[in-house]
Amino acid sequence: MTHWMTAPCIEPDAAVAAMAAQRQASLTKPPGSLGRLEALAITLASLQRRDRPCVDQVHIAVFAADHGLAEEGVSAFPQAVTGEMLRNFATGGAAIAVLARELGATLEVIHLGTVNDPGEIAGVRRAIVAQSSANSRHADAMSGVQLEAACAAGRDAVDRALAEGADLFIGGDMGIGNTAVASALACALLGEVPEALTGAGTGLDAAGIARKAAVIGDVLRFHDGHLSSPREALRRVGGFEIAALTGAFIAAAQRGLPVLVDGFIASVAALAAVAMQPTTRPWLIFAHRSHERGHRAVLAALRAEPLLDLQLRLGEASGAAVAVPLLRMACALHRSMATFDEAGVSRV
Amino acid sequence: MTHWMTAPCIEPDAAVAAMAAQRQASLTKPPGSLGRLEALAITLASLQRRDRPCVDQVHIAVFAADHGLAEEGVSAFPQAVTGEMLRNFATGGAAIAVLARELGATLEVIHLGTVNDPGEIAGVRRAIVAQSSANSRHADAMSGVQLEAACAAGRDAVDRALAEGADLFIGGDMGIGNTAVASALACALLGEVPEALTGAGTGLDAAGIARKAAVIGDVLRFHDGHLSSPREALRRVGGFEIAALTGAFIAAAQRGLPVLVDGFIASVAALAAVAMQPTTRPWLIFAHRSHERGHRAVLAALRAEPLLDLQLRLGEASGAAVAVPLLRMACALHRSMATFDEAGVSRV
Repeated sequence: MTHWMTAPCIEPDAAVAAMAAQRQASLTKPPGSLGRLEALAITLASLQRRDRPCVDQVHIAVFAADHGLAEEGVSAFPQAVTGEMLRNFATGGAAIAVLARELGATLEVIHLGTVNDPGEIAGVRRAIVAQSSANSRHADAMSGVQLEAACAAGRDAVDRALAEGADLFIGGDMGIGNTAVASALACALLGEVPEALTGAGTGLDAAGIARKAAVIGDVLRFHDGHLSSPREALRRVGGFEIAALTGAFIAAAQRGLPVLVDGFIASVAALAAVAMQPTTRPWLIFAHRSHERGHRAVLAALRAEPLLDLQLRLGEASGAAVAVPLLRMACALHRSMATFDEAGVSRV
Repeated sequence: MTHWMTAPCIEPDAAVAAMAAQRQASLTKPPGSLGRLEALAITLASLQRRDRPCVDQVHIAVFAADHGLAEEGVSAFPQAVTGEMLRNFATGGAAIAVLARELGATLEVIHLGTVNDPGEIAGVRRAIVAQSSANSRHADAMSGVQLEAACAAGRDAVDRALAEGADLFIGGDMGIGNTAVASALACALLGEVPEALTGAGTGLDAAGIARKAAVIGDVLRFHDGHLSSPREALRRVGGFEIAALTGAFIAAAQRGLPVLVDGFIASVAALAAVAMQPTTRPWLIFAHRSHERGHRAVLAALRAEPLLDLQLRLGEASGAAVAVPLLRMACALHRSMATFDEAGVSRV
């Protein structure tokens, strides 16, 4: 039996894309003058299979998890922050909570496991895989069963988004140490050295980055020879929230729900998803270029050209949320602008 | 008596900026992780002189005018389009009209003169300077009286924005041939050659661009020796809507109203405004990098780093409108995120 994550995704609708492109050419503006907003409208039309795409209903799922690798001192923040932030998501004080309210988006927070588990919190969904992944410097980050559970948590979030009638899915991350984990996974998937893909994360100085890269080097050596399968790379050196995002992106593409991809962590999950199932790729729209060092190489590997470059490096899906109005305005222009004929305006 | 356009502008409030920066450092995120959105909130606070800035009320003024230089064949579109588009702005079919609705912004259209004057149109304000500017290849584009009238039309739009309680002013342009006019003015202000600053406008091919650059070369030669004063450059080689934008930007800065600057045309007006009164500069936030060739040099001269780069080249203030949600989200994050103390989250 093939695994659900390797089942092919839906194909974007080329006929609808052609209709949308034709409409763009008829609108009262010099052809091409709306630049990437034109391409966005056409892409969304082909994914949503409707001539007039829309992104009114946005579903944001933030996955939080702790990482065994954090005990190697790879983050500027204490590990307790992952659990503490769960409450801040739920009570509306976190950046993504503020942005979700601004957008009128649904925000759900999925708790996959933290070392200081705050227990039940209204507004936080418990899908505990384990208190934390294992320290990948000395062990597999997770078992096969744990990997399945984490990926399924992502898929389930997509199913809830669809049940709500979402037009767009956004996945976010929270987990102290997760830029180190994402860098390790990106190195495994791209065959890169740690120095190329290791950055400041939440705010390391140069010495901290060097130490983080050395830890990632150790991780890659420990698992050497076992990282050629993307699934196995995700299991051995990944994390629960990154696996959840990977599962979510593949599931969204299989079900025909467009995804707006956030920054570095989410893009590494996208890289894993595309490695496992290449037909995921057309469903991924990239929101922003993160300030985190490794993001550029990951985006290049995905042939992704993000919409924004605002030096964001927060995670939580915040960069994707910031890009949502661009999609909405692209759809509004596509839907509501007058054609040359309607407006009685002369053409070229 | 000094001219109103050379009177100094209000100084941004450094004390409020410091308070806003302190607040940013206290919010539940790694310091600096919201990148340019943090800087935006701090800048808006210092301009609006309030610790919690906001851009709820946005006033968009689009100035439309025809150009004598259009008879030299410098545009891909017929000159009739300027007048035809007035109705499209008013009836809501133009890009900026769609975007203004999406943003809940006030849109006013100011008609400064067109060769095929459509007469009274509900929703279009008449402030006719002349049917068109003169052809600057053979004459001064406008008289001193016309320049005053055009600049005053911009200032008056700012006064209406303030009367409405606007938090932000956006100025847009419509005028067939106006990228040629703006390129000529930018060459005059920057001492550049036409080839460096002449682009495709609404869609010229390489031969068309070469011819346009040659026309601009003729314009600069005709006025050679008379372009060293920015006011005189604006009068001799500018256009009514560019003069209106110049007046509007200076007036906004004199009255303490932040400006979000659109693309190439608006940036050349900003360049003229800053040349006339350098204290205008802090009030200008640059929305996007246009696909029009000359924009890069104009932005560099203004030391401006725009927020967006989406290959837009429509004008009408459309690029500025697209950037408004970024300002709104920057303000919302600044206003509504929890501090570390409020949320009980551990710090670095």
